[in-house]
Amino acid sequence: MRSDGVLPVELPDAVREALLAPLVDQNCHGVRRDDLTRARFETLLSDAGTPAPPGTTHFDTPVGTAVRRWCAPVLGLAPHVPPAVYLARRAELGATEVNRRLLGAAGIATFLFDGDLGGPEVLPPAEMGHAGGAGTARVVHIERAEEEVARAAVSGVSYISALAQSLAARAVRAVALKSVTAHRSGLHLDPARPSRGAVIAAATRRLACPGGRLADQVLLRHLLWTAVDVAREYGRPLQFHTGHTRYGGAHAGRGGRAVHGGRVDVGTLGTPDAAEGRALPGRYGAGPAPMTGFIVAVQPVGVPVVLLHCHPFHRRAAYLAGALPNVYVDVGAALTRSATGSAAVMAELLELAPFHKQLFGSGGHGVAETCHLGALHYRRGLAGALAARLADGEWSVSDAVRVAQMIGSGNARRIYRL
Amino acid sequence: MRSDGVLPVELPDAVREALLAPLVDQNCHGVRRDDLTRARFETLLSDAGTPAPPGTTHFDTPVGTAVRRWCAPVLGLAPHVPPAVYLARRAELGATEVNRRLLGAAGIATFLFDGDLGGPEVLPPAEMGHAGGAGTARVVHIERAEEEVARAAVSGVSYISALAQSLAARAVRAVALKSVTAHRSGLHLDPARPSRGAVIAAATRRLACPGGRLADQVLLRHLLWTAVDVAREYGRPLQFHTGHTRYGGAHAGRGGRAVHGGRVDVGTLGTPDAAEGRALPGRYGAGPAPMTGFIVAVQPVGVPVVLLHCHPFHRRAAYLAGALPNVYVDVGAALTRSATGSAAVMAELLELAPFHKQLFGSGGHGVAETCHLGALHYRRGLAGALAARLADGEWSVSDAVRVAQMIGSGNARRIYRL
Amino acid sequence: MRSDGVLPVELPDAVREALLAPLVDQNCHGVRRDDLTRARFETLLSDAGTPAPPGTTHFDTPVGTAVRRWCAPVLGLAPHVPPAVYLARRAELGATEVNRRLLGAAGIATFLFDGDLGGPEVLPPAEMGHAGGAGTARVVHIERAEEEVARAAVSGVSYISALAQSLAARAVRAVALKSVTAHRSGLHLDPARPSRGAVIAAATRRLACPGGRLADQVLLRHLLWTAVDVAREYGRPLQFHTGHTRYGGAHAGRGGRAVHGGRVDVGTLGTPDAAEGRALPGRYGAGPAPMTGFIVAVQPVGVPVVLLHCHPFHRRAAYLAGALPNVYVDVGAALTRSATGSAAVMAELLELAPFHKQLFGSGGHGVAETCHLGALHYRRGLAGALAARLADGEWSVSDAVRVAQMIGSGNARRIYRL
Repeated sequence: MRSDGVLPVELPDAVREALLAPLVDQNCHGVRRDDLTRARFETLLSDAGTPAPPGTTHFDTPVGTAVRRWCAPVLGLAPHVPPAVYLARRAELGATEVNRRLLGAAGIATFLFDGDLGGPEVLPPAEMGHAGGAGTARVVHIERAEEEVARAAVSGVSYISALAQSLAARAVRAVALKSVTAHRSGLHLDPARPSRGAVIAAATRRLACPGGRLADQVLLRHLLWTAVDVAREYGRPLQFHTGHTRYGGAHAGRGGRAVHGGRVDVGTLGTPDAAEGRALPGRYGAGPAPMTGFIVAVQPVGVPVVLLHCHPFHRRAAYLAGALPNVYVDVGAALTRSATGSAAVMAELLELAPFHKQLFGSGGHGVAETCHLGALHYRRGLAGALAARLADGEWSVSDAVRVAQMIGSGNARRIYRL
Repeated sequence: MRSDGVLPVELPDAVREALLAPLVDQNCHGVRRDDLTRARFETLLSDAGTPAPPGTTHFDTPVGTAVRRWCAPVLGLAPHVPPAVYLARRAELGATEVNRRLLGAAGIATFLFDGDLGGPEVLPPAEMGHAGGAGTARVVHIERAEEEVARAAVSGVSYISALAQSLAARAVRAVALKSVTAHRSGLHLDPARPSRGAVIAAATRRLACPGGRLADQVLLRHLLWTAVDVAREYGRPLQFHTGHTRYGGAHAGRGGRAVHGGRVDVGTLGTPDAAEGRALPGRYGAGPAPMTGFIVAVQPVGVPVVLLHCHPFHRRAAYLAGALPNVYVDVGAALTRSATGSAAVMAELLELAPFHKQLFGSGGHGVAETCHLGALHYRRGLAGALAARLADGEWSVSDAVRVAQMIGSGNARRIYRL
Repeated sequence: MRSDGVLPVELPDAVREALLAPLVDQNCHGVRRDDLTRARFETLLSDAGTPAPPGTTHFDTPVGTAVRRWCAPVLGLAPHVPPAVYLARRAELGATEVNRRLLGAAGIATFLFDGDLGGPEVLPPAEMGHAGGAGTARVVHIERAEEEVARAAVSGVSYISALAQSLAARAVRAVALKSVTAHRSGLHLDPARPSRGAVIAAATRRLACPGGRLADQVLLRHLLWTAVDVAREYGRPLQFHTGHTRYGGAHAGRGGRAVHGGRVDVGTLGTPDAAEGRALPGRYGAGPAPMTGFIVAVQPVGVPVVLLHCHPFHRRAAYLAGALPNVYVDVGAALTRSATGSAAVMAELLELAPFHKQLFGSGGHGVAETCHLGALHYRRGLAGALAARLADGEWSVSDAVRVAQMIGSGNARRIYRL
């Protein structure tokens, strides 16, 4: 990342270098490779996945303001240009050049890609790595893998073996596994591994309608424990989406709005029935605390559990990272979303989370601006926190350097064995 | 509002003017028009609705300190005078002059009045508007309207039609509707509209003892959906009290302490039974997340849902305002209550809430000091946040001006059609 | 406490003196009197109660960094020395001298000791007071008292009388009672006092296996109400552990890891069964909101309820302290744990909690460093908050002095009748 003006404070050179060194982004998704209309661009910036209400614009958000401030100069514009000027310049340069500039300037060494790759409009990992001058690695999206297995399996028994084989085959070529169960049934996870008989019975029912998303609690627990087994065998951490979700988890939910390749088909979400109504608060955001029993059950297995995003439950997540040996955390997409406000979020993560348990992830999604701003606000937020600790004499310069290296890339290199 | 010394930071003139421009206060209640004893004044300042424990004073709170600091000069005293001096001056001037000074200096263009107007000791809207040099508009308190209907209706069938007619008749003369269901049964709202048959049956039971507060879940859902229908027909937003409550919601709860005209009849709250005990945590404060299913169900109807107060769940509320097109937020009474600490609360709202979804509300209640301090701390808190963004170069001056205008009055003018 | 360099900001002399005056520590435990290996020292610093994962160290935490920064000079070292140097110096001086220096420099007037005193490796109260140049007083750990009663009682009827007598006998020699029910069954407390018949029946079952921890809900409620009765009779407050727990409450939980005398027997925690899995989130940290019904039920009795620690639920606790006349709060161990981050935690407590309801507690536990750092970060955090209020002109100097005196010792002297 270019250093001029990115960091908001004066820092000793060694700290500055550690902050600006290339990051490992432990959680990102593909970004659009096609040129976007203003409506599409705004929708991709928003957590709603819908256009802004009449008379308003999604640019009037923290992330929208940050796009104009920080991404505009990367595209050769003055800071703070109006949205129309930004989007005209974006169209003029074309998506390929925009992605190359924004991802290249993000200062990422390695992207770890969520395995749900999206449609043809989305940059595949290799091309996104190329655009960003970065290496790439894959993360197995276990719910997606299960859906393929459910479509192909012919019996409850074969479902079990096929699921294990599918996850293992994917894990060989990946550095982690990831669950989005938070979007589907929340994180009140029963920690017990279900019996083989119960799984066969539930899988038999599932195969009767394999097109749907996984909703059965027995199969969900079986999926998680199969993922734990595979993660242990291949030495892979298991990531969990926690905290707020984009689109209320609609991209992962049964029914709901369909999201393909970053496109949101707005308006297909009907009125929720009673059961969906009760489930919706969880789908819009689940804190990690209710999965504590599951985490403790996984602990003896030795598989790291990585809690992604966490906001606004990040203080609880930070505590869990200190209280449980196998828990790791980031504040992921909250950095991008809260923009200038993300310094406070990061400061709260630093309150309790051991420094060897924190990681960087951009949660980048949809447009390259999100990856760029995730990295930028990570660096700015951590810079502010380190500067305050140095100014008060609380930390030494070498403390600040070591922590910046650990969170920025060292911890990720260790647990993902990069 | 007078500009001298109100804002804590240097700001460009345009930003300063935008911050000091008259506000729309989207949520206030009447204030006392009679002269108050020290015990009564302290009780009205407190969230407990009771005198301070022996040996202590409610002036030793954030809001009590702010009264001495900020309201004293409006009454012609030096900042920080002791409580006794403040109250002596208050008595000397008389309530009418005190209200005129404090409300007039608050810099409010329009008060939106909660429809539960209180007793004869409380200033009615027109007089409060006159005292503050402001316009006024009304908000329909739907639970109060239901109670009148329940007292008058003669059958379950007529209850249904009378309720719809009553809300409609009130909505014609109001700019919004408001629910305080949070105080009664929390916000775990089943989103489904109940059947007509179920409503008739429940209403028939209700009419047998119409004096009580509404507790039946079917009737509560019916009330909310009737309010949604009326809100849609007349183009009115629907406000919900969320977050902490004053007096544990006792002014809205069945049994409990009675509060009339700002007076709290202390000591009539008996030991809660088991059911009340389980309900009390909700009555002392419910976050908006559990009502997500209801909000999503209302979304296709196009009625804005305004979440009031929200503290300490305001980060979740801020996210919901970004994730759901029909959600709006304020941090209302938390500004008055937390006084100098409110800058942090406002900064957290600014983390995620779209700027076109945030509003100002003082939550003013009981004494004119609360309205004055709500407006003051809103301006001070936002001034600090804007100054930080300008100093770091994150926002442009025109960004700061636009956001101050939107939150201070523009968003309210748009959604309430003022 | 020595003043040189402890406070991070310039303050008027009177405020500085009030902050540096001796504190009442309303919640501490014994610290180790023996010399510790690095593994043991690190484990005692950690919330996990286990060694750090391979390749990491618990010194890379907020509290670990603070030990090197603030405790090293007390042992005659430069700030920021490496962990190995710190521990070598600690061994060189010996535990007795280390404790004398760290506790003596903490500036504590009185330690209130949790009644669960630990084993022979732990300093007993009198010696800890001597080491710190402080007075000591005791707090009755009601769950420990119950366990003794359960081992000795011969019938359900005698259990009831023996429990009342045991708590009374301990309360005579103590200044408060304390419950750790949060670690066992969470804080969703049914507020109702159970019937005598139900207690006798449950106690009869309990006496059949008296060795176990108390899990029965009827007996738990009976224990709490017996404690309330005793507290009222002897004029003692009732403390509750809330918020995060060390070791997931394993030192208090059935089964779980055993912790004796500060030693954690790591590795004996098996995979939780389904019921334990559901209970674990609560054992790792319960907010005080669900006990609101119980607090309201206790209110007419006049017994102060003191909420300890509270993090990350301290904003809710702060509100409860304002909304309920009998509630008091500290942020206890969160000060030690979050170190430099604790200023933000304290600022959030100051948002809403009345100043006459806040207290200081270090939550000190295991090693003298925790007591020292709790006091240090309390003073630094409050100093920062006061300085900001003075600089903005929000508070007067005498406000700042009075609040520092109240929170630091005055409130504790009042409610504990010291």
